[in-house]
Amino acid sequence: MAAEIGFWFDFSSPYAYLASERIEDLAARHDRTVVWRPFLLGIAFKAEGTKPLTHYDAKGRYSVHDFARSARLWNIPFEMPDPFPAAALDATRLFIWLQANDPEAAVTFLHATYRAYFRDNRFIGDRDVVLAIASECGIDVAAAEAAMTDAKIKARLRELTQEAVGDRGVFGAPTMDVDGEMFWGADRLDMLDQWLSRGGW
Amino acid sequence: MAAEIGFWFDFSSPYAYLASERIEDLAARHDRTVVWRPFLLGIAFKAEGTKPLTHYDAKGRYSVHDFARSARLWNIPFEMPDPFPAAALDATRLFIWLQANDPEAAVTFLHATYRAYFRDNRFIGDRDVVLAIASECGIDVAAAEAAMTDAKIKARLRELTQEAVGDRGVFGAPTMDVDGEMFWGADRLDMLDQWLSRGGW
Repeated sequence: MAAEIGFWFDFSSPYAYLASERIEDLAARHDRTVVWRPFLLGIAFKAEGTKPLTHYDAKGRYSVHDFARSARLWNIPFEMPDPFPAAALDATRLFIWLQANDPEAAVTFLHATYRAYFRDNRFIGDRDVVLAIASECGIDVAAAEAAMTDAKIKARLRELTQEAVGDRGVFGAPTMDVDGEMFWGADRLDMLDQWLSRGGW
Repeated sequence: MAAEIGFWFDFSSPYAYLASERIEDLAARHDRTVVWRPFLLGIAFKAEGTKPLTHYDAKGRYSVHDFARSARLWNIPFEMPDPFPAAALDATRLFIWLQANDPEAAVTFLHATYRAYFRDNRFIGDRDVVLAIASECGIDVAAAEAAMTDAKIKARLRELTQEAVGDRGVFGAPTMDVDGEMFWGADRLDMLDQWLSRGGW
């Protein structure tokens, strides 16, 4: 089994979207597989006493400028969605259910959800929007809706968030984990790439 | 006159120290001169409702790990100082005075001050330490001490901080400014490098 890159993400993070478009190529170059790890970024913000980037004044203006600048650098389509951010609980729970039941569909749905929000300004905080995305991915809509309210799935998301925030000290997204070494931020993919090439330093 | 790279810094910022060791080479490759721009990072934190990295819990632990990891990657000596951070008002005022009176000595003093704190754990929050560093740089100690309490120098530091935080929206250090385009963070020097090579994108 190939070694892994853990990719901790929240569907409402622009930088996690940008990194999600690059991490699989990076992993493949190093014969690694990406393990997608959803968690609730809002819980991390609460634990740290921080908030979404756009809720800061100067840092918020810089970030919105930098999302688009970074996207252009990496040739990734990007439009800042409005409203932002989105509480993407339904999408996250559906993703967790898919990971357990149809891992390939899970990855298809992940990219479709990120692109819906950050390219097409479809509001992924709405259940109907998420179900439409699921349907476009060929996912059974009735099963998808059931997954969104499944108590075991809800509990699993709480567990994953506890693992991220409580156990690993994840405080932002994306956070990449390679062999216990954490890298935070879409702008750290090059450093992660070097880390894997050199086996650390 | 060569075009400039504005380098906004505070003597207590580890990432600004790391970037200060790399920015002159980067600038030279693009036929640019570095314009060193001191400001009070604490005022930016207050304006944004943020605080020093190490005052956050998980982000603080990650940052301390990452300061050293980034330093090793870039082959820059680094030891996390204790106590940290330092209110480096005296050093900053002396730097401003030197910039106006002996620009070459100012840059020598800047690097010496950063290295004293982040390599040799000399506490640059103490006036006596700063005066000792000044003396080691061949700067007249009596003149240096006078500069630290000069009302005009104090006013100039307030103006610079206002320009950074109030006018330009600087919220962290280092912040590099090229032709009005801002880059925040030591880990954005490669992006800045590309920006200069390509003339933006």
